[in-house]
Amino acid sequence: MANTNRGVVYEGPGEVRVEDLDFPELVLHEQNERKLNHGAILKTIATNICGSDQHMVRGRTTAPAGLTLGHEITGEVIEVGSDVEFIKKGDICSVPFNIACGRCRNCKERHTGVCENVNPARAGAAYGYVDMGGWHGGQAEYVTVPYADWNLLKIPADRDTVMAKMRDLTMLSDIFPTGYHGAYTAGVTTGSTVYVAGAGPVGLACATSCFLLGAAVVIVGDMNAERLRQARSFGCETIDLSQHADLADQLEQILGVPEVDASVDCVGFEARGHGPESGGERPATVLNSLMDITRAAGRLGIPGLYVTGDPGGVDENARIGQLGIRIGLGWAKSHVITTGQCPVMRYNRQLMMAILHDRVQIARNVNATVIPLDRAPEGYEEFDKGAARKYVIDPHGLVGAAS
Amino acid sequence: MANTNRGVVYEGPGEVRVEDLDFPELVLHEQNERKLNHGAILKTIATNICGSDQHMVRGRTTAPAGLTLGHEITGEVIEVGSDVEFIKKGDICSVPFNIACGRCRNCKERHTGVCENVNPARAGAAYGYVDMGGWHGGQAEYVTVPYADWNLLKIPADRDTVMAKMRDLTMLSDIFPTGYHGAYTAGVTTGSTVYVAGAGPVGLACATSCFLLGAAVVIVGDMNAERLRQARSFGCETIDLSQHADLADQLEQILGVPEVDASVDCVGFEARGHGPESGGERPATVLNSLMDITRAAGRLGIPGLYVTGDPGGVDENARIGQLGIRIGLGWAKSHVITTGQCPVMRYNRQLMMAILHDRVQIARNVNATVIPLDRAPEGYEEFDKGAARKYVIDPHGLVGAAS
Amino acid sequence: MANTNRGVVYEGPGEVRVEDLDFPELVLHEQNERKLNHGAILKTIATNICGSDQHMVRGRTTAPAGLTLGHEITGEVIEVGSDVEFIKKGDICSVPFNIACGRCRNCKERHTGVCENVNPARAGAAYGYVDMGGWHGGQAEYVTVPYADWNLLKIPADRDTVMAKMRDLTMLSDIFPTGYHGAYTAGVTTGSTVYVAGAGPVGLACATSCFLLGAAVVIVGDMNAERLRQARSFGCETIDLSQHADLADQLEQILGVPEVDASVDCVGFEARGHGPESGGERPATVLNSLMDITRAAGRLGIPGLYVTGDPGGVDENARIGQLGIRIGLGWAKSHVITTGQCPVMRYNRQLMMAILHDRVQIARNVNATVIPLDRAPEGYEEFDKGAARKYVIDPHGLVGAAS
Amino acid sequence: MANTNRGVVYEGPGEVRVEDLDFPELVLHEQNERKLNHGAILKTIATNICGSDQHMVRGRTTAPAGLTLGHEITGEVIEVGSDVEFIKKGDICSVPFNIACGRCRNCKERHTGVCENVNPARAGAAYGYVDMGGWHGGQAEYVTVPYADWNLLKIPADRDTVMAKMRDLTMLSDIFPTGYHGAYTAGVTTGSTVYVAGAGPVGLACATSCFLLGAAVVIVGDMNAERLRQARSFGCETIDLSQHADLADQLEQILGVPEVDASVDCVGFEARGHGPESGGERPATVLNSLMDITRAAGRLGIPGLYVTGDPGGVDENARIGQLGIRIGLGWAKSHVITTGQCPVMRYNRQLMMAILHDRVQIARNVNATVIPLDRAPEGYEEFDKGAARKYVIDPHGLVGAAS
Repeated sequence: MANTNRGVVYEGPGEVRVEDLDFPELVLHEQNERKLNHGAILKTIATNICGSDQHMVRGRTTAPAGLTLGHEITGEVIEVGSDVEFIKKGDICSVPFNIACGRCRNCKERHTGVCENVNPARAGAAYGYVDMGGWHGGQAEYVTVPYADWNLLKIPADRDTVMAKMRDLTMLSDIFPTGYHGAYTAGVTTGSTVYVAGAGPVGLACATSCFLLGAAVVIVGDMNAERLRQARSFGCETIDLSQHADLADQLEQILGVPEVDASVDCVGFEARGHGPESGGERPATVLNSLMDITRAAGRLGIPGLYVTGDPGGVDENARIGQLGIRIGLGWAKSHVITTGQCPVMRYNRQLMMAILHDRVQIARNVNATVIPLDRAPEGYEEFDKGAARKYVIDPHGLVGAAS
Repeated sequence: MANTNRGVVYEGPGEVRVEDLDFPELVLHEQNERKLNHGAILKTIATNICGSDQHMVRGRTTAPAGLTLGHEITGEVIEVGSDVEFIKKGDICSVPFNIACGRCRNCKERHTGVCENVNPARAGAAYGYVDMGGWHGGQAEYVTVPYADWNLLKIPADRDTVMAKMRDLTMLSDIFPTGYHGAYTAGVTTGSTVYVAGAGPVGLACATSCFLLGAAVVIVGDMNAERLRQARSFGCETIDLSQHADLADQLEQILGVPEVDASVDCVGFEARGHGPESGGERPATVLNSLMDITRAAGRLGIPGLYVTGDPGGVDENARIGQLGIRIGLGWAKSHVITTGQCPVMRYNRQLMMAILHDRVQIARNVNATVIPLDRAPEGYEEFDKGAARKYVIDPHGLVGAAS
Repeated sequence: MANTNRGVVYEGPGEVRVEDLDFPELVLHEQNERKLNHGAILKTIATNICGSDQHMVRGRTTAPAGLTLGHEITGEVIEVGSDVEFIKKGDICSVPFNIACGRCRNCKERHTGVCENVNPARAGAAYGYVDMGGWHGGQAEYVTVPYADWNLLKIPADRDTVMAKMRDLTMLSDIFPTGYHGAYTAGVTTGSTVYVAGAGPVGLACATSCFLLGAAVVIVGDMNAERLRQARSFGCETIDLSQHADLADQLEQILGVPEVDASVDCVGFEARGHGPESGGERPATVLNSLMDITRAAGRLGIPGLYVTGDPGGVDENARIGQLGIRIGLGWAKSHVITTGQCPVMRYNRQLMMAILHDRVQIARNVNATVIPLDRAPEGYEEFDKGAARKYVIDPHGLVGAAS
Repeated sequence: MANTNRGVVYEGPGEVRVEDLDFPELVLHEQNERKLNHGAILKTIATNICGSDQHMVRGRTTAPAGLTLGHEITGEVIEVGSDVEFIKKGDICSVPFNIACGRCRNCKERHTGVCENVNPARAGAAYGYVDMGGWHGGQAEYVTVPYADWNLLKIPADRDTVMAKMRDLTMLSDIFPTGYHGAYTAGVTTGSTVYVAGAGPVGLACATSCFLLGAAVVIVGDMNAERLRQARSFGCETIDLSQHADLADQLEQILGVPEVDASVDCVGFEARGHGPESGGERPATVLNSLMDITRAAGRLGIPGLYVTGDPGGVDENARIGQLGIRIGLGWAKSHVITTGQCPVMRYNRQLMMAILHDRVQIARNVNATVIPLDRAPEGYEEFDKGAARKYVIDPHGLVGAAS
């Protein structure tokens, strides 16, 4: 084991670089120093670029320069703290992007997305993310994971099997559970008709989850033709919102009715207007269109990120996360709306089982694309341009070698 | 049985009158004539004035003059259609305010608030309400109830017992289940701390329900001192929002923390700003304050009415039911939000049992006040001025006689 | 429309015959005459032979000679009663095997398997079944369905599509929902490992449902090699219980652990001992083996039939449905056990959607085998011998013609 | 802090003694030595005698002589291990009787009653109990609690308030959550009618919980007149099973119908026959009577203990926990049955809130009776004779002093 480390660092709007980093320790130096005897150090096997990283890189948050990025991490345990009892050196584990203590009320109640002990500022924390507790990011060769017995999901298979499925398993840290959470909280189940807003990686993971949950028809809307093609490649119907402003009309052509049983917002606050003529940012447009096209008594899942502060917001209200929502319409239809980060630990073991037993092809569906650490900046750039790919950084060349 | 009928009629903004009406038939003459062999005619024993009636009377809807009002009905069956099999003449029954067919998908799935067959315009219907399917109101001596076997809840007790508890049982048609639905969908359960926005009858019914559901602390906020006094009379903590703009601060004084486990909006779209200096209408203020003071992973119940069209809205957006909501804040806290009409049939049998076995004093808590039919216009007026009373119209003098 | 009718009649242990029957009426002549203005008369398109029919035919119940058999019915509406409002002549509908009124407490609460109004003897009724309310069976050319608006599920597709999928859609009346109910109440969900006891049609439908619910591994146990082959044909693992007495050991070979997350009993009270040497009837053996191999905190679904009276029971206790159950073992593992008839209406619309949109191949998985009405007796006989087939009676030759 | 310790030790059938014990350490010496840096040492404030202790003391288990008894513990933290981060010295905490690691699959899924890491023999552990992992009992002056951050529930109130409510709070370690779990899993909710079998402390705690959950009518059955009187003291209806063998008939006299919505078995395997003439042990009689008197679609909660081995069982089957259960009857009624230990952590925080805010009087209802440690043997004896009391051992005289 070397004592060196390198990782992806945010250097300001539009700029990420791969830089030398300190080797991880079982201590958190941010804020008050915090000993992490409950933690583990992982050699990162795979770590993905996430759409929510892009919010930071585009300068749409208050992220400070110098932040090591990355919250989608899978790795091999190379060191454990004195309080780690069940996770062992050599275990290959998936790391939920939400950091959780396993000891507070919210963790005990399975709301690990809003753990009360890992972020002094508010409930909820993540690796390498602004305002999320000051934890180091995992787009790096090595990374520290606190509360390892609680947070880490050990992949219970031999190393060859694990490595052969690493392109799928790496999706367990965030987008697969996040997409699944969106679908699940929208009430998607056997026979559902579903509309998924957004065909980025979370949207595609959500559509994949809809099928896994038994949906009858999964319709994905986006303005990016390549991403829509990707959605069609695994059985989704699609709507090209750059061509069609009237979503209900499009749904009626597909389903015979202008409404779906359930809908999921995989876009979030950087939404744009629909139709050939409306290109500007309209942050509430997805939420409002979902209320329009979801049937009475239906549910909306909102895994797409909405923020409390957006320096680049279109107006004063948007800048504080206050959006013009057609709540009267939702109310008339008795909608139930679930917001927030996915509590990854609620789903990741189950989804891992589906992957290990070949019930789902998440890597294929999101078009997992493995790149070396040094190419991470290009990955960010291409992803930002709308490539229909999910970039998987491979810091030690292990994923590529296993394919 | 006489063949005459009298009832409360909306005659325009600010004006209701008691007028002669046609005697009910087992036919619906609105729109296409519809035979109601599945219906029953009831002699109204008790029928309450509801806060949502006030929206019409204040001219905040598109209700046409000539509409017979009233959707909170309890009565004795005096005639049944040929297809009514289990409800019998002489049964005393509570009538859910939502009309439902018992034969569509939504009814079969217990979403009777959004029945698909009883309102040609959209899902969901009610007696005597604008845009709710054209059914006659029940603030009258006699009224027709369609799909009687499905809709009617027979009170399974002898007549004396029923009449002795009529002031409680009359709350089963709307506000008790509605308040309960708000609490239930907000996740209120054993040991919860709850904030209920609004101390009108629905708010008080909600607070009552919170206790019935086992809440540890129930805090009610309003700007009406008399209503707050009523809330305190059965064990609620209260916050006078005419004096205190900072709700979180007030909660912290009561609970030691500035947040509650669950919150319920019993106000709806005619909300007003909080604090000594802000008297204007601010339609999203309750929703936004609930997001502020509900803990991460908490739930919000929204039984308070939000509309799709409000001729008296404060601005263009409000007039179409589009409000400025701090969705970014709710998202950061992973809130779950349940909107819409209470599906009364999901709860009314249970609540009836609680009443019949003296587990709850809903009439006392909402300050049920029995008035004769002729005094209904005064009831409307006093209620609109903020009387801490729930007016129960007693068209045949039966409720008063039984007390 | 002819006024003649023919159907399958139970004539005593081991004997069924196709006989002339009265044409159905909208009246029930059993017990007190009951008018069925809420009913419909169907021309039967498909009607299946069910394993639970075999209990009667084998003389293991108190069914009287002369009973018209059949509770798995799909047909075209040819007449509706005066109270039928939404179902129309010409609709092709699936009929849930449980008859329900849609007006009692249990129906309103979605427990249509134990409707309180359709069987004077006890909660719950079915077509053509002993002690189930005296309703005529549907293995006939024509049949009456009461409470048609409530009970009938209209297939919302054009006639050609419906007929092309009839071999699948006919499974909606019983075994597909029944198998799904077993899996669902056992907690089967994404990533589950499941053991299904029994590879008859319900077992195969259950295994199919497990996959639809997202199960990672579905293991089916039986003593019939042909049925096990059928299970393997769509991805199940299998255990031949005629060869292996130690179920836990077999599971460990497949899963690496001797327990599953969830288990389902698709056998019921006519269970037989496992292993090469134990051929006798042991009515509790499936229940006890499920407690043994289901993990702590797991759930057991019990759609397999257990009866309150069994004239052919192995001992005095078995004859009254009292079995020696290892409840101490279940208790130590905190098992949750769901028993009873499937409430078909809770699932059939969803499963229909999955069929119509090609998400599931239920006919293929249960090996649907279409036979003319006259061959029904042979179907009974072959099925009783263990044919790995689900026999679909085609009284009018319509299903065969559509294939 | 002294370094001495005394506690209640099982010395063989019918014999318990208070003896000197080693002072607790943060090490478990049973089996393989296990370091407990995650543990805390508590000074016991209150520790109750439980009915399940009596099974051991009566010789109905394989408990070895020398076992320190006691799993109902409330105390003050006097030492924490190096890995305890949030629990602090001086915290007064309730200890769930089930020991759980907070790191295994079952704990993460809230099934702390069947933790996989704290008992090498099988899932689930407890303090001072046979076959439950070898952990020392807490009927002692001092006791060790492992995984303190996970297991301990800190009472968030000042010391005076806590001590003033200690007689209530001490019920949080077992019987209050256990009774609540029985009621909750039986589906008890607003307006339910419930039958609780057994008026011992768990039965009374269950009846208390039923009211807290909103039940309309709670009926308790037992053969001990004093315990039934205790049940009536807080509003229960009662049935004296020493006088009445026909439970359904008794229920009909109370309710007007012979069935309840929900039922709970708070007796377990040492059940005795009902009625004036049947005094012998009949281990399945409670389970079978609950199936008889619970309505179709109802649920049964089974917190009463059923064991896998009972040296004193009435016959060979009973000795291995195999009982003659009328599963055919339960199946006909579509019952759902929940067995097993209560996972205390799922409920204790909520119930604590109800106690702290005076919503429930659990100590009064179970007749909490405080005794010094030296009188524990008399407590065991009186409890075994059927005293309608819940004995609370007060090792340091702190509870008595606070009253």
